[in-house]
Amino acid sequence: MAKYKALIAGRYSPEVEAISKEAPPEVEMCFLPQGEALGDHVADVDIIYGHIGEADLAKAKSLRWVQVVSAGVEGMMYPAFKDSDIILTNCRRMHGSQIAEHAFALLLSLTRRIVTQHEFMKDKRWEKVPCIELAGMTMGILGLGGIGRAIATRAKAFEFDVIAVDPEPMEKPESVTELGKLDWLLEFMAKSNVVVVCCPITPETHKLLSHEQFNAMQDGSHLVNISRGKVVDEDALVDALRSGKLAGAGLDVTYTEPCPPESPLWTEPNVILTAHSAGSSQHIAARTMRLFVDNLHRYVREEPLINVADKEKGY
Amino acid sequence: MAKYKALIAGRYSPEVEAISKEAPPEVEMCFLPQGEALGDHVADVDIIYGHIGEADLAKAKSLRWVQVVSAGVEGMMYPAFKDSDIILTNCRRMHGSQIAEHAFALLLSLTRRIVTQHEFMKDKRWEKVPCIELAGMTMGILGLGGIGRAIATRAKAFEFDVIAVDPEPMEKPESVTELGKLDWLLEFMAKSNVVVVCCPITPETHKLLSHEQFNAMQDGSHLVNISRGKVVDEDALVDALRSGKLAGAGLDVTYTEPCPPESPLWTEPNVILTAHSAGSSQHIAARTMRLFVDNLHRYVREEPLINVADKEKGY
Repeated sequence: MAKYKALIAGRYSPEVEAISKEAPPEVEMCFLPQGEALGDHVADVDIIYGHIGEADLAKAKSLRWVQVVSAGVEGMMYPAFKDSDIILTNCRRMHGSQIAEHAFALLLSLTRRIVTQHEFMKDKRWEKVPCIELAGMTMGILGLGGIGRAIATRAKAFEFDVIAVDPEPMEKPESVTELGKLDWLLEFMAKSNVVVVCCPITPETHKLLSHEQFNAMQDGSHLVNISRGKVVDEDALVDALRSGKLAGAGLDVTYTEPCPPESPLWTEPNVILTAHSAGSSQHIAARTMRLFVDNLHRYVREEPLINVADKEKGY
Repeated sequence: MAKYKALIAGRYSPEVEAISKEAPPEVEMCFLPQGEALGDHVADVDIIYGHIGEADLAKAKSLRWVQVVSAGVEGMMYPAFKDSDIILTNCRRMHGSQIAEHAFALLLSLTRRIVTQHEFMKDKRWEKVPCIELAGMTMGILGLGGIGRAIATRAKAFEFDVIAVDPEPMEKPESVTELGKLDWLLEFMAKSNVVVVCCPITPETHKLLSHEQFNAMQDGSHLVNISRGKVVDEDALVDALRSGKLAGAGLDVTYTEPCPPESPLWTEPNVILTAHSAGSSQHIAARTMRLFVDNLHRYVREEPLINVADKEKGY
């Protein structure tokens, strides 16, 4: 007899459904019918796999735990949820590989001029364009969580000198040569030929990269953002591109998403925009459901859950 | 008093000229004047930095040594040169980093759909496209020289299982889990989700990847070629793209270069063509001149030169 009811409002596929059947018998697994409103199904639900907004939360009287399917949890940081006793778990450590691949795709597309050469293809134009070699440069990783570390490992193999900024106390991983706190940010910007934004969005990181930070960079540097657009002041970013501080920017995220039509980023030369796709992977739906099922087994056994988010810190 | 005369017919920049001044005093360094024919300057030359064709070779009566500025030496494999006693050195181990970066740029652009998303930018269209995660896949490296090894190191950090085929006897590097000779090629093709062509062009590797080899692959695989286009039978390549054996191909080289207008590769979906640019780097001109100057010092001291090519093997 099921003791808990879980509502599955996340990514769906036949593989996801098959994995969901491995949930413990104490949990009744209900898939939110396609096209139906979450709020109409939450009244007696103990656990949600997905996201629940402020309006629906008021209807979810039995809710004890939300497992979001992203690494970022800023969408759950509204006061009614933050102040509640409802547990929040995220999908950190599920996205490292594909987001690291996406970060390198953005960076290498810029340095190896892939988009320019693709435009040439339309005219059947065989013309060499000068490319940039990255080996020997310094990559600065802003936020050394699971994604930042996955990028650091790859960057080291690409012969970058890898430095990082992170506010958390942590041991410096082997892939990183220098690790500092936020008070080291300006020096970090000055040293980095490539800065990769990998940090969560919190009040502390909101517009953390602004005019002062970009001005500290060397001319001809590169910026990659695969975490959250609101970490970057986009006016300052556009200035940095136009002044030559930045030779290019690869952005999977923007301050407002979808990126609004009036944003200069759509048409700025040397910018590649992808539509918050860095987490995309043929494996991700199954991988996050597997985490949820593992967590359900822990939940019924009253063991500590994996990936509990700290609501105070916001990640 | 100079004992030898060297003609510099390779890449030129003020940095290159500065490095050239570090040549030993026994060597007179002459830069080929821009726009002038090599053949008019070779009569009394002992050493050439660059390429010399068959017609000019007959005029170069004193020539003892040619330092080409590429890794591949197939352009010097005509009988009059091959049968001569003239020493041939190449620029292997000078291109590993940037060519490895280019190989990953081609591959990741395909798997992370960079070109598609760039086309969307023109319409200010914010739309996620499904991307492919590479971690956990098998990368097959055809030709485990300096460039193949640089790619293998990076691929391991990208969580590929790396396998390789090379005809030379060698110890398996730490980055590679399985290494075979050419008789293992079909099994290698079957195991690899991504095949990267890194081998020189020789009679043995001409059209080495043809119908039988592509047919052995798994559906939805990827091909990257950053060495020589003639290793690939392009009719077979196009068939493999159309049948779905290949989900994409990233090609820096084609069978004939420039790629002729009638080639279907210009318009085939899921193909990215770059114009033999993988070796491009802000450092390459200085790096190859540095090698040449090092070799000149060895030459005047009658020490063995670095990077002597084997004319019999053709690399």
